[in-house]
Amino acid sequence: MTNIAILGFGVVGSGVAEVITKNKALIEEKTGEKINIKYILDLRDFPGSPFEHLVVHDFQTILRDPEVTVVAEMMGGSHPAYDFSKACLEAGKSVVTSNKEVVSNFGAELLETAAKNKTAYLFEASVGGGIPIIRPILNDLSSNRIINISGILNGTTNYILTKMENEGAAFEDVLNDAKKKGYAEANPTADIEGIDAARKIVILAALSFGKLADPSKIHTEGITEITSDDVSIAKKMGYAVKLIGYTSVIDGKILCMVSPRLVSQANPLSGINDVFNGILVSADMVGEVMFYGPGAGKLPTASAVCADIVDIVMHRKTQMKLPAWEKASEDDLFEFEKYRCRRLFIFRSPEADSAAAVKQISDVFGSISGFVFENGKTCFISDEMSEKEAVELSGKCPLELIKMYRLL
Amino acid sequence: MTNIAILGFGVVGSGVAEVITKNKALIEEKTGEKINIKYILDLRDFPGSPFEHLVVHDFQTILRDPEVTVVAEMMGGSHPAYDFSKACLEAGKSVVTSNKEVVSNFGAELLETAAKNKTAYLFEASVGGGIPIIRPILNDLSSNRIINISGILNGTTNYILTKMENEGAAFEDVLNDAKKKGYAEANPTADIEGIDAARKIVILAALSFGKLADPSKIHTEGITEITSDDVSIAKKMGYAVKLIGYTSVIDGKILCMVSPRLVSQANPLSGINDVFNGILVSADMVGEVMFYGPGAGKLPTASAVCADIVDIVMHRKTQMKLPAWEKASEDDLFEFEKYRCRRLFIFRSPEADSAAAVKQISDVFGSISGFVFENGKTCFISDEMSEKEAVELSGKCPLELIKMYRLL
Repeated sequence: MTNIAILGFGVVGSGVAEVITKNKALIEEKTGEKINIKYILDLRDFPGSPFEHLVVHDFQTILRDPEVTVVAEMMGGSHPAYDFSKACLEAGKSVVTSNKEVVSNFGAELLETAAKNKTAYLFEASVGGGIPIIRPILNDLSSNRIINISGILNGTTNYILTKMENEGAAFEDVLNDAKKKGYAEANPTADIEGIDAARKIVILAALSFGKLADPSKIHTEGITEITSDDVSIAKKMGYAVKLIGYTSVIDGKILCMVSPRLVSQANPLSGINDVFNGILVSADMVGEVMFYGPGAGKLPTASAVCADIVDIVMHRKTQMKLPAWEKASEDDLFEFEKYRCRRLFIFRSPEADSAAAVKQISDVFGSISGFVFENGKTCFISDEMSEKEAVELSGKCPLELIKMYRLL
Repeated sequence: MTNIAILGFGVVGSGVAEVITKNKALIEEKTGEKINIKYILDLRDFPGSPFEHLVVHDFQTILRDPEVTVVAEMMGGSHPAYDFSKACLEAGKSVVTSNKEVVSNFGAELLETAAKNKTAYLFEASVGGGIPIIRPILNDLSSNRIINISGILNGTTNYILTKMENEGAAFEDVLNDAKKKGYAEANPTADIEGIDAARKIVILAALSFGKLADPSKIHTEGITEITSDDVSIAKKMGYAVKLIGYTSVIDGKILCMVSPRLVSQANPLSGINDVFNGILVSADMVGEVMFYGPGAGKLPTASAVCADIVDIVMHRKTQMKLPAWEKASEDDLFEFEKYRCRRLFIFRSPEADSAAAVKQISDVFGSISGFVFENGKTCFISDEMSEKEAVELSGKCPLELIKMYRLL
């Protein structure tokens, strides 16, 4: 029998208890072992819950109990989640988590602590919710060099952008609707400002390239500046606007960034709608593979957490091979200013004289085709250029730049 | 050092040698072990190939060499691939394969042989080519009960159907074009008749439900009867026509089938185009997850084979937990005649009098809406009904039934 403790009995924590209880027989059959929830740590009591009798308020009860060998940390936030995880690993307990804040900030250290103490630190649920992504990258693409990863990593923002595209609705209106439906939190900052996606993309980058960037230091843009007009212009040009976490290696350095991107209809990410997530991995041998599914939610996320628990139980007689991450130094990271891609530019232009606008733009940007004129705006897609060049050229153009979007 | 042998130096076999050679350093870093190709078995010589000196013609050389611990069977066909695999497993060597014909026909027996001999039989590449699917189902959805799987499992037929949809082309024309481009074999029977997809869906069913059905006994329809007119009617109604392998458990029995299905635009499989494959797994805890990527090809398939090799090397000190399959008896399988789903019916009808056709159909099928009239055909989508009911009702209708498609 494996005794586990759940830290935090919120949405995901209670989901883990539910999965383990509902699919008890199936899990026991697969692992050949009984998984027993011995404690649930929470500040609250849960009178009437079937798990009421397992609730403890003192973390030390769990830490000091040698029978508990696996701890599922579902608390959210950095502290005390990190501190409790570290203490458990040091005590020789394995830790599984859905906490992207902890993994993205302390993952390198916690993996090292786990390896030192011959235990495990697993975090399948920290990226893509229920979507299998961490383990497939590590185990299924093991003979591949990852080239880049682009992902729709946040369900809330993808729901908002899908609504804006399908209904022509304004950002604020859709956000309010999303709050009502429970797809956005009362304080949605971490989602709509891209902070949540930034945490996830640095985890994917570390899995791919071995170095963990500070999520607060990477280029991160959210979706608050996107207008329904922008979305409609992009759509006319054959693109969906998606919030994309992107990582690749350029000139031996790691690029991690989060920003709205124009995704062409030929890219399978363009069809990922509503609260779903999709992660497209490009690797040297396999080419492109995509993983799609529910990026959040109680049972999907718990499904991923339980996969980690089962994995640990299956490997109870051997040390699992864990990834070893270094913390990325500033020098490890590719300078965002140098990042080159094609771009959509939207300039304000006098409605009556599109020919003049085209000339003013062509004089600066060179020969550009594919102009779209809409509501006093001149829009076009440029060749590849860096961030720096994009700013410089826009500054040289006599027309007023309204918006610039990167293409994926 | 792990010594491996490759059986069959065709497309996939040479791909495996290429992946192991090109990404040698990366694989060694991950496994902490050198992987050495000691032999390549083929009837041919390969003068000028960098692997020329490894080629042997006698299988016994490999079988009798105790240094060879992993054998990659890439021969194709049932014999001698099955016989060689069995002999290797009995000799305590692990076997990895991309051979869906062998896995779908002899998988239960070979897994049992592997378990008995404390070795491994892995087949990630047998379904979905380079797409991670076998390992994610086993390891990432381990706490889930699989509800059903629907997959676009054959790239050749998906290429043909995509072309038919996008260009309104006829089946024969696109097939010839696919042959020229190397997307279809000179003898494309196994692909276009659904035989290849049938092999893959019984493997996915066995992974999900523990019983391996005889692929030649499941309901299997190919795409040869699909006309560009059918595809265009479906498109107008908001559906893509896809060749779908489908498995689920109904009333405690396993259904496996392959047939063209109408896939609504809301289903992510509808966007899987060209030679790509996509596999949508519905499970009780996670909901729906989809895996997308190249379902065939030299390096993608080799990437999956190498993932299996790496997995075995990583587990060299412990027995891997292999799935245990039983062969499905006739009684284990759900009767296809009883399978219920919504259906598109296409009846021949006098062009001038659609109202009469609607009446004749409604008299038999009850109140049906969503009629489409095209080229002297009356088309509509029914409620859920079984195969048997579909045949009976069509027979009662005075109009001539041209075609029936199942909805997914």
